[in-house]
Amino acid sequence: MKYLTPGPVQLPEIVIKSIARQPQFHRTDEFKELFKNVIDKLSRIAYGTPIIAPGTGTFAVDMMVYNYVNPNENVVVPIYGEFSERLAESLESRGAVVHRIKWDIRSVPPYDVVEDFCKKIGNVKAIAVVHNETSTGVTNRYVEKIQDVANNIGAVLLVDSVSALPAEPIKRRVDVIATASQKAFLAPPGAAILFISKEPRAYSFIPPSMNIQKYLKMVLRNETPYTPPINVIYGLDASLSYILEIGIDRYHEIHRERAEFLYNSIKLEPIPRKQFRSYTVTAFYTDKPREIILELKKCGYVIAGGMGEVKDKSIRIGVMGSITLDDLSKVVEVVNRVVDR
Amino acid sequence: MKYLTPGPVQLPEIVIKSIARQPQFHRTDEFKELFKNVIDKLSRIAYGTPIIAPGTGTFAVDMMVYNYVNPNENVVVPIYGEFSERLAESLESRGAVVHRIKWDIRSVPPYDVVEDFCKKIGNVKAIAVVHNETSTGVTNRYVEKIQDVANNIGAVLLVDSVSALPAEPIKRRVDVIATASQKAFLAPPGAAILFISKEPRAYSFIPPSMNIQKYLKMVLRNETPYTPPINVIYGLDASLSYILEIGIDRYHEIHRERAEFLYNSIKLEPIPRKQFRSYTVTAFYTDKPREIILELKKCGYVIAGGMGEVKDKSIRIGVMGSITLDDLSKVVEVVNRVVDR
Repeated sequence: MKYLTPGPVQLPEIVIKSIARQPQFHRTDEFKELFKNVIDKLSRIAYGTPIIAPGTGTFAVDMMVYNYVNPNENVVVPIYGEFSERLAESLESRGAVVHRIKWDIRSVPPYDVVEDFCKKIGNVKAIAVVHNETSTGVTNRYVEKIQDVANNIGAVLLVDSVSALPAEPIKRRVDVIATASQKAFLAPPGAAILFISKEPRAYSFIPPSMNIQKYLKMVLRNETPYTPPINVIYGLDASLSYILEIGIDRYHEIHRERAEFLYNSIKLEPIPRKQFRSYTVTAFYTDKPREIILELKKCGYVIAGGMGEVKDKSIRIGVMGSITLDDLSKVVEVVNRVVDR
Repeated sequence: MKYLTPGPVQLPEIVIKSIARQPQFHRTDEFKELFKNVIDKLSRIAYGTPIIAPGTGTFAVDMMVYNYVNPNENVVVPIYGEFSERLAESLESRGAVVHRIKWDIRSVPPYDVVEDFCKKIGNVKAIAVVHNETSTGVTNRYVEKIQDVANNIGAVLLVDSVSALPAEPIKRRVDVIATASQKAFLAPPGAAILFISKEPRAYSFIPPSMNIQKYLKMVLRNETPYTPPINVIYGLDASLSYILEIGIDRYHEIHRERAEFLYNSIKLEPIPRKQFRSYTVTAFYTDKPREIILELKKCGYVIAGGMGEVKDKSIRIGVMGSITLDDLSKVVEVVNRVVDR
């Protein structure tokens, strides 16, 4: 089976091999050396101090929320799918007053709309956006511009980039990014990854396992406050070398090429409008999601169904991971065969 | 190198091999089948519904705390080392009113002392205890009795069994147990494991990634609410088979035999008083911790230094994992050589 899912993704052989090692004791000099290398490599992916915590995407997002938002504060969240709704729910679990900008799931609100909305609310402490809506394949390419909006109104910007970075890069410094190991980072699930450019501003009720201050203090010593997900870090060490060897710009291009091949070849309507089409997770409307998924499985390919309001009306094909254009051609052929039936 | 640390531990070869696989997409029937098997095996380890979340020990403990304690509630915590203090800190981060029973680090308070203390406080909603103090090698063998105390006063019992279960079993049903994959479970770090016998009683401000209700709902369908730590689960599948093949009682005995061999052979004073000696992590007072650790490393063995108030005055030798009595004999010889110097 080959996995063309929204994550976990098909890992390169070298990554799978690298995780098959005895996990070292994390307080040894040898592990600190390895950990330092991984942090250095992450520093070349995005701006900010990278931290790694045991957990996956939802944990990374919760960690960001609980360290940057206090109960009763106003937070603005543009909503364009399941994961932006989950981001809002994390904020509500924190006790924040969440102001949703509900938007058509096929696109995202322009940054000036976000700015006007925030100004109307007043006293907004944070803007929280999903970079890539894994549920619909919609990418928010205004992230950097929304950082300007946040700066203008004195708010912090929280970015959920779980299924985007580093295949969909963030080219400027933004306040906080939450992401995870198992998607475009090409490692197994188990590591929450954050990039911190602004000091945490929440002051209480932060679970110790989520406390970014504790992680920031330890990363200076090439350590983590608690047991890290050691084998996943072995995987990250290998996959980051692989990605950096390709280069971030080329890595982005590769994903764009793969995604555009699908958008241009599959005889189904993509969910996202043209300028918001994701280059990591493609999503298409269809009335035959089960048939397509089963037929592909017979041919050795695993893709995913829809989520949220397009649950039984769409398919999602991830283009991250160790796949080739030949794989994608076969997938297109099978999908189109079922569509034409 | 062989790891005789308090965790992560030396994994059996079969476990390391089992993690070296492409992580499957977790919404497929194949993964659900595997996950069901792992949950079934966990059900044979301890009472309660097992849940698995991405995270390690600290996360498992936070998850327990945030789902069973509400802000401003009275909670009693016997303190006998670094990890009982961390348990108290997790509760304080939650906003609980923590009442510490401070105790000599070489032992634990008897259960009638805990009961009297709780009755004096009054309106105690939870008792939280560390089963095995990883920092000092002190095991609390009154856990089952403290459940009776909790029942008597109408409180919930929260047990941190991170470095105990399943090598130090819990033989009766207790309300909640928090543990993790990387110690006596013989799997890589990355899976928080809980056994739930009582419905979560906290009602708000629970981060979604920690919400036990969400996990309990999904486990009935052999699923997790979010991406699970898939490769760690592959490891757990193999290690649980290995442990269950040995049998829980025999598994406990093996650890007791290994630990007693160290207690009887090493020419240093164990930290715990005799009846509280841990069978998973042994700890000894010494004025030469660095020398012992370095000398052992030269001979291929990694052990750990002290923590908390015995930080530079002790060593810790774990006896979990894929080690032999021959390994332990070599360790004893090296330690005693440095001691006699």
